[in-house]
Amino acid sequence: MENLNKIVELSYALDTFYFLISGALVMWMAAGFAMLEAGLVRAKNTTEILTKNVALFAIACIMYMLCGYNIMYPDEAVNSVWPGIGFLIGGDNSLEEVLASKGETYYSGMSDFFFQVVFVATAMSIVSGAVAERMKLWSFLIFAVVMTGFIYPMQGFWKWGGGFLDEKGFLDFAGSGVVHMCGATAALTGVLLLGARKGKYGPNGEVQPIPGCNLPLATLGTFILWMGWFGFNGGSELKISDVGEANAVALVFVNTNAAAAGGVVAALLTSHFLFGKADLSMVLNGALAGLVAITAEPLTPTPLVATIIGGIGGILVVFSIIGMDKLKIDDPVGAISVHGVVGTWGLLAVCISNPEAKLSSQLLGIVTILGFVFVTSLLTWFVIKAVMGLRVSEEDEYHGVDYSECGMEAYPEFTDTSKG
Amino acid sequence: MENLNKIVELSYALDTFYFLISGALVMWMAAGFAMLEAGLVRAKNTTEILTKNVALFAIACIMYMLCGYNIMYPDEAVNSVWPGIGFLIGGDNSLEEVLASKGETYYSGMSDFFFQVVFVATAMSIVSGAVAERMKLWSFLIFAVVMTGFIYPMQGFWKWGGGFLDEKGFLDFAGSGVVHMCGATAALTGVLLLGARKGKYGPNGEVQPIPGCNLPLATLGTFILWMGWFGFNGGSELKISDVGEANAVALVFVNTNAAAAGGVVAALLTSHFLFGKADLSMVLNGALAGLVAITAEPLTPTPLVATIIGGIGGILVVFSIIGMDKLKIDDPVGAISVHGVVGTWGLLAVCISNPEAKLSSQLLGIVTILGFVFVTSLLTWFVIKAVMGLRVSEEDEYHGVDYSECGMEAYPEFTDTSKG
Amino acid sequence: MENLNKIVELSYALDTFYFLISGALVMWMAAGFAMLEAGLVRAKNTTEILTKNVALFAIACIMYMLCGYNIMYPDEAVNSVWPGIGFLIGGDNSLEEVLASKGETYYSGMSDFFFQVVFVATAMSIVSGAVAERMKLWSFLIFAVVMTGFIYPMQGFWKWGGGFLDEKGFLDFAGSGVVHMCGATAALTGVLLLGARKGKYGPNGEVQPIPGCNLPLATLGTFILWMGWFGFNGGSELKISDVGEANAVALVFVNTNAAAAGGVVAALLTSHFLFGKADLSMVLNGALAGLVAITAEPLTPTPLVATIIGGIGGILVVFSIIGMDKLKIDDPVGAISVHGVVGTWGLLAVCISNPEAKLSSQLLGIVTILGFVFVTSLLTWFVIKAVMGLRVSEEDEYHGVDYSECGMEAYPEFTDTSKG
Repeated sequence: MENLNKIVELSYALDTFYFLISGALVMWMAAGFAMLEAGLVRAKNTTEILTKNVALFAIACIMYMLCGYNIMYPDEAVNSVWPGIGFLIGGDNSLEEVLASKGETYYSGMSDFFFQVVFVATAMSIVSGAVAERMKLWSFLIFAVVMTGFIYPMQGFWKWGGGFLDEKGFLDFAGSGVVHMCGATAALTGVLLLGARKGKYGPNGEVQPIPGCNLPLATLGTFILWMGWFGFNGGSELKISDVGEANAVALVFVNTNAAAAGGVVAALLTSHFLFGKADLSMVLNGALAGLVAITAEPLTPTPLVATIIGGIGGILVVFSIIGMDKLKIDDPVGAISVHGVVGTWGLLAVCISNPEAKLSSQLLGIVTILGFVFVTSLLTWFVIKAVMGLRVSEEDEYHGVDYSECGMEAYPEFTDTSKG
Repeated sequence: MENLNKIVELSYALDTFYFLISGALVMWMAAGFAMLEAGLVRAKNTTEILTKNVALFAIACIMYMLCGYNIMYPDEAVNSVWPGIGFLIGGDNSLEEVLASKGETYYSGMSDFFFQVVFVATAMSIVSGAVAERMKLWSFLIFAVVMTGFIYPMQGFWKWGGGFLDEKGFLDFAGSGVVHMCGATAALTGVLLLGARKGKYGPNGEVQPIPGCNLPLATLGTFILWMGWFGFNGGSELKISDVGEANAVALVFVNTNAAAAGGVVAALLTSHFLFGKADLSMVLNGALAGLVAITAEPLTPTPLVATIIGGIGGILVVFSIIGMDKLKIDDPVGAISVHGVVGTWGLLAVCISNPEAKLSSQLLGIVTILGFVFVTSLLTWFVIKAVMGLRVSEEDEYHGVDYSECGMEAYPEFTDTSKG
Repeated sequence: MENLNKIVELSYALDTFYFLISGALVMWMAAGFAMLEAGLVRAKNTTEILTKNVALFAIACIMYMLCGYNIMYPDEAVNSVWPGIGFLIGGDNSLEEVLASKGETYYSGMSDFFFQVVFVATAMSIVSGAVAERMKLWSFLIFAVVMTGFIYPMQGFWKWGGGFLDEKGFLDFAGSGVVHMCGATAALTGVLLLGARKGKYGPNGEVQPIPGCNLPLATLGTFILWMGWFGFNGGSELKISDVGEANAVALVFVNTNAAAAGGVVAALLTSHFLFGKADLSMVLNGALAGLVAITAEPLTPTPLVATIIGGIGGILVVFSIIGMDKLKIDDPVGAISVHGVVGTWGLLAVCISNPEAKLSSQLLGIVTILGFVFVTSLLTWFVIKAVMGLRVSEEDEYHGVDYSECGMEAYPEFTDTSKG
């Protein structure tokens, strides 16, 4: 008996440690988004996007602590659509509770909060890239407060908090929908209200490419996200301390990596056939698309199937980015395509390998998240627009939002500011 | 009995692994300091600061192995002020010792050394930023030898080696004092002897801002440090293998993250109210200030209190950086404010949440570390100055220390060298 | 008995987790190589080298899954020179198999695949830097297919798959030979067929330095590799779940770090005495040389001996880089010196600390890997050259391969393209 208790404690410690390391890797994704986005905008808008990325992570942490976590994981929900009042993060499981739970309480509650809080920041990071180069900093940060405190946790409750989407059999392992499509939908509403950057679409509808200023940064950001995704998907198994769970986590790691690899190769070939060139920005988005695609179900496919699911994501993202430009939806980093379009693909792809998946449930989940986030985000942006405006002045946009919002250049010695 | 032994071995393995991963994250902070500092200096001084950061890490590892570790953790100390001769790193605990120790020897001695050796590099990294853009490379590296081999380990012994500060009840969980204030004090003495960079303070006392050349790098460095801090604070619990310890480590992760978030938001708001702009360099220093502030006690506050402790750090750092310039203490990266001023705040803040803390003990620790490091550092810099000088020639400073010290430019294609 | 089974499961979970985290750190090295190489080439060839690094990682993952892993670790080999047909990655160990194996099956097979697949990418990353700035992208990627699917796994089988080099007592803990010398040999053959970059060697044989365009990136890459190496060497112990194994992993971490530190200090001093300057690129290569040198045997030396082994690597690499230029072998990043010359040194250095090492076996391993990889790589490059050519046109090389291969600049706002 004494030995058994020690084994229970040790399992608890291992699962908690696994959770914390996974969470640290997800936190690291914030750096990935920051570098990716900073690499894909112009030099004159770099300081601002960096500021946004650091600040949104901090806001997400605070808002999710104050109310988001309680909405998403209430102690007792009113019903499966409406969460309860919840509790403010405080104590943790006592030794007695752990031993008495017969293995049900198998990790620290604080480690769960840590893992969840870094997830919400990921959803929010998706938004910042899409609205880059023209939005007011403070308008964005106020949206971040609402998004991380209310919008994200509400739909998160419906799936991961045990709400009605979960009851209806909607499957979303690590958040192709709850995190990625959610973030992309919020991004889309922002972009629709903001409009395109000046000069992006010519008077005759022609698309004017606006190249990113620092591709090594964008590549670094992609590698950081790739690495962090091992925590994102790997940690979402929630347990590692027995043979079956350890095998599951290992398979999730392998499939996550395989899907990213598939996305890279597919996007590389697609861009080669379309443009005759190996377009690095497409290749990077291909990697991310592969990762987003596998996130809804990284556990049931074989590695070969995972590669293919990621590869289809990589093809989709190239056509989606081209299509968005046709629709004049100006998304400087391709976030809506990577996280929204491919996130939807990932949710549907669950049906390929998971026999428990039902297409109807997946469609219900897609429509619910899309609809709810679209409406609430649009409303939020509208209120912010009415109160303080969303878009910087034309002059500020011309000189770059770094001046108007942050008062400092990102690369004062590398760029000729007279070029504008 | 056989099962019990296996459990003891498994616990030992888990705690050792936890230590090694924590140490790897702290090692990663060296990259964070390098990027932060490289981003905040001018292009012409970038190669040199990168060289300093790589070389100081290597020197710290070698000096701490040769003598620092033995001073800080002697097998048998002469008394609580004076350490013993110690031992040179060699063997590790045998299986028999581990089993016979009844749980007292619960991790590999080598893993402890690994965790400690990367800590000393952190203390030294703090110095390099403050003396940037004007110090001779070799003078700095010789200081690094003395600092990592003797000054840091000596005061470290007083607290963590079981010396008199520990006996007097001075509390410093992961080193707001032993690491951060220690490093900042050494930095301060260097800056006092070196003087300000040419052109920083005008003839009438006006402050001339010298903007950093690469803010994405500085942001990346901050994110790296933020991530590494999970190892820095999280690993300092020293154990994870039972329910109580696992909960403790999880709380440390949550509080470390919360304090950083608090620091970001507080510095953002403070700079907004002071300057009317979202000053990114202040926001980054706010994150670091939050992290430094919580380092002395990340275990007893609730996450909300941790956010506030970090937030106060974030406010303090903005005013401190402004104040240093008023005093004409020229610290290009704000290291003395972040690690010294906020480190002191962190040591005092222990009294807020930890009922075992005594203000008198905290003050004794602050005065002891500050006094000891100030005197020994000043002495060391003095001797180096007398023998080989501290400051590069005015001409070398004008052209950049990259030419004079390293013979190569950091960005040969991006900067117009004729601009000087 | 029930407790014993739980202990076996928990050990399995810990070893699997240790493998997965080690693998994630090795995957992270891909980012390190990408940043290192992007920092050491000229701006006009940066997009292409980034594309190569992302794409080769993806190709390595797919090819190794499809055939490489099966060649390197066949279920049943034909004989110790020729592997069997193997199996395609599929299932994992069942609980019954694990419990029945009496500890022999102690980690997830998928986690082993994950750890191995990221290794092969490392070997391939070594090649990309050496052939930078003049090779056609697609020629390189096709070589990557052959290298990661066949050449690397074949010689890997001879050592790690239990083939004849293993039987002959050749020792190579984590791959100074199997990974680093292998990659460097493939790089060498590519460079020999490609020839030097235009302008690198003057008409009278004088060497024209071509400085890297972004040294902070190169430094970041080195730090990433340093960190990732804890997974590379630390994970190669393959087990951590008892006292002896935990101590071993801890010693590997300490020695890996010590060797890197030794390499840095040795290269710094060597370059100081040779050039009178602290040459950062040499210091970075010194760190990598220390890491490569210790990789063949990080377990038997004391930390002091590891520092010296790394230090000798750091001296060797400086002279080797100078020597390569004398031989007009144009390797823009020094990869052949770091991984090939120092890799050989590492294999020989096993004899210093490991009493089981035989010089004759080490020489046999060196000659076998060198010979096999040289011949097969040369053949592969030859076929690729005949079919599609290896080198871009002189005009494309002048304007930079970013235009010709990728159609986009890496830093469109920082460089004056009229300079060429």
